[in-house]
Amino acid sequence: MSKKFAVRFIGPDRKGLMASLTQLMFGCGCNILSSAQYVSDDGMFFQRLSIDFSGLFSGADNRAALESSIENLARQFEMDSWDISYNADPHRVGILVSKIDHCLWDLLVRHANGELKCEIPFIISNHTDLKYIADQFGIPFFHLPMEPEKFGGDKVKAKAAQEAKIETLIEKHGADTLVMARYMQVLSDAFCDRHASHTINIHHSFLPAFEGAKPYHRAKERGVKLIGATAHYATAKLDMGPIIVQDVAPVSHRDTVKDMVRKGKDVERVALARALRYHLESRVLVHDGRTVVFD
Amino acid sequence: MSKKFAVRFIGPDRKGLMASLTQLMFGCGCNILSSAQYVSDDGMFFQRLSIDFSGLFSGADNRAALESSIENLARQFEMDSWDISYNADPHRVGILVSKIDHCLWDLLVRHANGELKCEIPFIISNHTDLKYIADQFGIPFFHLPMEPEKFGGDKVKAKAAQEAKIETLIEKHGADTLVMARYMQVLSDAFCDRHASHTINIHHSFLPAFEGAKPYHRAKERGVKLIGATAHYATAKLDMGPIIVQDVAPVSHRDTVKDMVRKGKDVERVALARALRYHLESRVLVHDGRTVVFD
Amino acid sequence: MSKKFAVRFIGPDRKGLMASLTQLMFGCGCNILSSAQYVSDDGMFFQRLSIDFSGLFSGADNRAALESSIENLARQFEMDSWDISYNADPHRVGILVSKIDHCLWDLLVRHANGELKCEIPFIISNHTDLKYIADQFGIPFFHLPMEPEKFGGDKVKAKAAQEAKIETLIEKHGADTLVMARYMQVLSDAFCDRHASHTINIHHSFLPAFEGAKPYHRAKERGVKLIGATAHYATAKLDMGPIIVQDVAPVSHRDTVKDMVRKGKDVERVALARALRYHLESRVLVHDGRTVVFD
Amino acid sequence: MSKKFAVRFIGPDRKGLMASLTQLMFGCGCNILSSAQYVSDDGMFFQRLSIDFSGLFSGADNRAALESSIENLARQFEMDSWDISYNADPHRVGILVSKIDHCLWDLLVRHANGELKCEIPFIISNHTDLKYIADQFGIPFFHLPMEPEKFGGDKVKAKAAQEAKIETLIEKHGADTLVMARYMQVLSDAFCDRHASHTINIHHSFLPAFEGAKPYHRAKERGVKLIGATAHYATAKLDMGPIIVQDVAPVSHRDTVKDMVRKGKDVERVALARALRYHLESRVLVHDGRTVVFD
Repeated sequence: MSKKFAVRFIGPDRKGLMASLTQLMFGCGCNILSSAQYVSDDGMFFQRLSIDFSGLFSGADNRAALESSIENLARQFEMDSWDISYNADPHRVGILVSKIDHCLWDLLVRHANGELKCEIPFIISNHTDLKYIADQFGIPFFHLPMEPEKFGGDKVKAKAAQEAKIETLIEKHGADTLVMARYMQVLSDAFCDRHASHTINIHHSFLPAFEGAKPYHRAKERGVKLIGATAHYATAKLDMGPIIVQDVAPVSHRDTVKDMVRKGKDVERVALARALRYHLESRVLVHDGRTVVFD
Repeated sequence: MSKKFAVRFIGPDRKGLMASLTQLMFGCGCNILSSAQYVSDDGMFFQRLSIDFSGLFSGADNRAALESSIENLARQFEMDSWDISYNADPHRVGILVSKIDHCLWDLLVRHANGELKCEIPFIISNHTDLKYIADQFGIPFFHLPMEPEKFGGDKVKAKAAQEAKIETLIEKHGADTLVMARYMQVLSDAFCDRHASHTINIHHSFLPAFEGAKPYHRAKERGVKLIGATAHYATAKLDMGPIIVQDVAPVSHRDTVKDMVRKGKDVERVALARALRYHLESRVLVHDGRTVVFD
Repeated sequence: MSKKFAVRFIGPDRKGLMASLTQLMFGCGCNILSSAQYVSDDGMFFQRLSIDFSGLFSGADNRAALESSIENLARQFEMDSWDISYNADPHRVGILVSKIDHCLWDLLVRHANGELKCEIPFIISNHTDLKYIADQFGIPFFHLPMEPEKFGGDKVKAKAAQEAKIETLIEKHGADTLVMARYMQVLSDAFCDRHASHTINIHHSFLPAFEGAKPYHRAKERGVKLIGATAHYATAKLDMGPIIVQDVAPVSHRDTVKDMVRKGKDVERVALARALRYHLESRVLVHDGRTVVFD
Repeated sequence: MSKKFAVRFIGPDRKGLMASLTQLMFGCGCNILSSAQYVSDDGMFFQRLSIDFSGLFSGADNRAALESSIENLARQFEMDSWDISYNADPHRVGILVSKIDHCLWDLLVRHANGELKCEIPFIISNHTDLKYIADQFGIPFFHLPMEPEKFGGDKVKAKAAQEAKIETLIEKHGADTLVMARYMQVLSDAFCDRHASHTINIHHSFLPAFEGAKPYHRAKERGVKLIGATAHYATAKLDMGPIIVQDVAPVSHRDTVKDMVRKGKDVERVALARALRYHLESRVLVHDGRTVVFD
């Protein structure tokens, strides 16, 4: 496990790019375990390579050399971006929750079972309701309430202050990924922009249907026959971020809003967990407000 | 087959209603084959009974007597509405199409196979492209083009004139149900109101997402991971009618709009056929812009 | 909640049965909240009524009177069986587990969230691995290992002894339902027969495919494109019991057995929870090795 | 379209293989449109490349040169097998049917709509029932009945004689693919072996459940809650061939065998069409009784 990495490239499609890429990996003693590639209609090139570099020449795990040669190639072929993630350095995922617990339970049980290869340095909530769950799994829980009263009722300032504390925790614990596991707060645009493409939110509807509040109530009102959930990267524009995973469940006239909420929970937790998993394995490439998911 | 009927009731829930209903059926020698009942949160009562009346007293198929006694009971319990449909009198379904053929093929093949218990007196189109399909199944095809040029370019008048011709055909052939099998025209409000609750439309998206034009293009643009189709009763408000059936299919970044259209076709035809089937079997009760579907 | 019950009937279809049933309920001041009925091809009648008896005559909750009048009617119409369950008396569900934890976690979290209306008096396991989970939810955990060594290596006697202890706990805690949440032991025929129709097992395949051991390994071996799970009532014949719920998930050649196990977990827990829910709400009627599920 | 091809490789995984492959394509002026690769647990390498060779050096479409250089590389890396298929040379698909028509209708409508990029030189049936459908689409229909009476009642000889006629038609029309669209005959082992990996059969159950005859009857008998269909390559061992596509549909106790047949039709036709599409696009690689499907 410790001698593997995933490398990703996004950029304009160029002849010979793949040949050079695979040559480079072969040349420096890396073995390609899997390769996924996609060229969009508008000529953008997306590549993910899973690499075993245990045979890296000189035997040593010479990351710097490897990365600089990749950098050179990326520059030569004018890639827009590339990145590398080593299995030896698992992601550090911070979780944001409010009072709803099913997604938190689900993530922590999967993590405890080794389904999610990451570390969870902290759980943050604006309420204390779910602290007992964090405690059961021995994960640090931080209560960061909104306190407009401390700012003369100014909610914007209160949110800014609270988010500043979140930033401090992210910094301190070196979190590189955030999961909003039914975190009922809308993050500020500034925060979203800072954490674009590594903050995963679960919305309890089949986007773009029922963006915003109370989707199940509106689903009942409209009389739809399916409900859904959408895991997407959070962006300043609410519920407009790049979609990673979506799924649905059938409902009928017999289902009350309460039934929809119950049935929806199963869709939400599975969609969120699958999206996080894809993210942790560097399978999600974001471009132009959409995702390429190499599953 | 010839001695069965389905009877439906909608109205405020009343104590003893079911008891009286079942008593009535028993009393006049009818055998209840199946019974479905639903009471909504706001106290509305929905009932569908499937009845074998071969044992109807006096042995004779005395429809009038039967219906008047049901009418009395419905009045006694202040039902909002009730109706009866006899298997011996299959629905007469008129089909509206434009140039897209997959739903038409599907309906006609199912009909030929006896999957859809109805008669299809006519197929109407504003184009002649699909006439050859109607001919293959020996179903009368009527070409009713939009002819604004005949009305000094006035499209509203042209539509009114064309819809008048549709009404004439409906009248002449005694059609009680209309199916818009990807009929790309928006029907006038007046027409929709006249044919409310017996005109089924198939929309090629998961409503309320992507109402209106080019849903697959917008689905691609948004980057959704599922596409869908919705069969609903047509109403004056475009794509806002009571939903009967919805289904979805997974898509990925690899799917072009053309792929989505192709994959969507399978969802559309199955959703439309299932919705029509429910309608033909009197399984769909409409109330307050939503449906109760007793499947 | 406290003044509702569900009553179920199974027997040969008889004219006037429904009329008498609904009359009876009406007559004794009960209000029918919902009614589901089904007559099989071979003329068996299945009925479930959900009843509000707060208006029961004399105002009193006169269960005995109610039940005797139902008994009379059932006898009159020669029903094979009927039963009644009062919401005021929730089911008492004992859980059997071994070492695999995902179904146990799922049931306990749902129970804690009020999704499963029942009491869980005990969790039994032949191992101690999952005791810590029971502890977290404050549910008594009993470790009942198989101890062939105490019986000169006789496994049958060891199983009999262990099952006797299970019986004692069932007796003592008044459990009326058992859930085998991935309990890896095969129960004796005698035990299964004693607890037929109230012991729910989850099998990790789409039955009748891959009955018995290691279904995921065999699924990989066969190269299927879907995996599944089946929640059914346990019977002496392994994996042959009446099926309550089945569901599937797509897999591809890329999925290793380990991936299938992971993906299968989500199907297993949802199928088991849904089946238990149906059982708790008296929605499952068993006849001739199959179920009628009024969902 | 005319200047594209797909090339596939199967063999033991070898270091540098991908690098050499991509180099080769780049070297001879080919542009890699997409690349899919998979290495199985037991070290087998599966590769599919979609190539634009309009820029093939010397500008000429020099297939021979291209193929020989691929052959050399395949030999150098000891590939078990490789093949190439040019979009300019669409597959020629012969269809086998009996009396059941839904899959035939579906394939012909899709073909007419350009959904299936192939030619259909002939339709063969042991009955004449479906000739009228072939006629509607102007596709030659050949009636090849089983005639044991001509062989003193010897069914084996009769089948051999009929299959010989099929072989003659395959030969004459240069068919490279066969589709058994609910062809109710069991092909001889010899025939299956000759046409392994290019004869697609649709079985109306979720294999390995309900192999053989009357799967829907047995599904009803067992009381399953889902029915399915499996598209697979035909092999001498009935219903044991490599699976390409599987799908399911929910059923309940209310569904009679006839209902299951009806619902199953929609699953069958979509599964068969998808499998054929994958086959036509060279997306299916067969190894060790299983398939790798690069969708």
